[in-house]
Amino acid sequence: MLQMDTMQHIEVIGIGAGNPDHLTLQAVEALRRSDVVVALDKGDTKADLLNARREIVDKHAPGTPIVAVTDPERDRNPADYKAEVERWHQERAQLLLDALPAEGTAAFLVWGDPSLYDSTLRIIERMRGLGLNATVTVTPGITAVQALTAAHGILINRIGEDIRITTGRALVDGPMTNAVVMLDGGAAWMHAPDAEIWWGAYLGTDKQVLRHGLVSEIGIDLAQEKAALREKHGWIMDIYLLRK
Amino acid sequence: MLQMDTMQHIEVIGIGAGNPDHLTLQAVEALRRSDVVVALDKGDTKADLLNARREIVDKHAPGTPIVAVTDPERDRNPADYKAEVERWHQERAQLLLDALPAEGTAAFLVWGDPSLYDSTLRIIERMRGLGLNATVTVTPGITAVQALTAAHGILINRIGEDIRITTGRALVDGPMTNAVVMLDGGAAWMHAPDAEIWWGAYLGTDKQVLRHGLVSEIGIDLAQEKAALREKHGWIMDIYLLRK
Ligand SMILES: C[S@@+](CC[C@H](N)C(=O)[O-])C[C@H]1O[C@@H](n2cnc3c(N)ncnc32)[C@H](O)[C@@H]1O
Ligand SMILES: C[S@@+](CC[C@H](N)C(=O)[O-])C[C@H]1O[C@@H](n2cnc3c(N)ncnc32)[C@H](O)[C@@H]1O
Repeated sequence: MLQMDTMQHIEVIGIGAGNPDHLTLQAVEALRRSDVVVALDKGDTKADLLNARREIVDKHAPGTPIVAVTDPERDRNPADYKAEVERWHQERAQLLLDALPAEGTAAFLVWGDPSLYDSTLRIIERMRGLGLNATVTVTPGITAVQALTAAHGILINRIGEDIRITTGRALVDGPMTNAVVMLDGGAAWMHAPDAEIWWGAYLGTDKQVLRHGLVSEIGIDLAQEKAALREKHGWIMDIYLLRK
Repeated sequence: MLQMDTMQHIEVIGIGAGNPDHLTLQAVEALRRSDVVVALDKGDTKADLLNARREIVDKHAPGTPIVAVTDPERDRNPADYKAEVERWHQERAQLLLDALPAEGTAAFLVWGDPSLYDSTLRIIERMRGLGLNATVTVTPGITAVQALTAAHGILINRIGEDIRITTGRALVDGPMTNAVVMLDGGAAWMHAPDAEIWWGAYLGTDKQVLRHGLVSEIGIDLAQEKAALREKHGWIMDIYLLRK
């Protein structure tokens, strides 16, 4: 029983992708069960995201301490992409493990849903490798994909069609339609000139911008708008659906 | 202004995929703004789903009337799949249009998220064709995909990989891995014998069952278990991730 008493518990909580009211009732409960919230501080450009988490904690579980851990440096253009991501996760894992309280329940508030292009679950696996002894519960959250489709009032796919979720990087490597594209640092939609695009940035926030049209007609303008928005706010998160 | 006053408003609200606490704070607000809830009654086999909606309304917006519309008949093995789905949607649209109150806000509570394999948004388009004059707001919800990954505590994809969401029908047509499979009436995982499978049925409910293993090892057993569960409860909803 001593083992049980000193074992840690981790709540991995999806908080939705922009609107604080994306939070589910289940997520509110999980947050209230937590003794401390651990947050990765991704630096100035993502300060808004850390603030969003603070707001959620203050509103639904006031008084819960937030431990902010500064994200380690990462090479954005490595020779070996997979290896660099691995190394970076290992360093994050150690930093977070050091920040974790010795017992009780720690919450990780994950942007969107924890299963979609997020490293928290992988980091926790690494923390196990570094000595963590913890049970883990995952609470799903609204993804940016759903924030996009809800804002445009559209379905992801037409009847009988598959759905593909991919990254800007993959889109550059080969043409693709009927795909939701995330993590695009540039304007990868230009690689699908014959597609229709439903685009959204800062979804669910008061900065939200929506665009819809043919890539051949609005693609270049959209690339300029994206650059201007990034300039204006210091950061941008955008996502889009491409369909032939 | 007369036009505005008599115009209808529709709230399309994702309610999550099983657990009533999948509901978001935003969904609760949208429900509370609604004057009436319109629910499609899909017959005996899906009675549990209608009950889930009733429970949500009683808990978060007690007293709001629920108008239950019985789903029209549908040919499950039509010669022309797309055409039959079209015809069926048109009939549903007319039934729902007739059930809608002449003014005020009507809520459609959608299982999971409204953008994912759901016909509500298409039906509303059809209702417009049949004379509906309404504004529409969509509130995203937790999908069965996320209910699955959260229950297993897994990511949808490995680093750098695409995500595909597909149907049992498509899986039968050709081998596919790294895919989340929905709407499988049978045991289509047997078409991917070299995959690992994370399976979940009745996710988020008190009937929830999870299985994980190699299709080559647990596939046949799982097919029998699925048949037995369907027999026992009168209906089943399952979803799974296949990965090579
Ligand atoms: C590291 S991923 C995290 C995704 C998250 N786990 C989810 O479920 O949505 C970050 C990417 O998600 C998308 N994204 C997240 N939030 C967004 C928002 N509010 N508006 C637009 N895109 C968003 C962008 O494509 C961004 O590059
Ligand atoms: C018509 S689709 C609706 C999907 C829904 N809009 C969503 O976002 O999840 C129904 C399919 O979703 C999956 N599903 C929905 N709820 C589920 C649950 N609680 N457990 C397992 N599968 C579920 C099953 O694959 C089922 O065949």
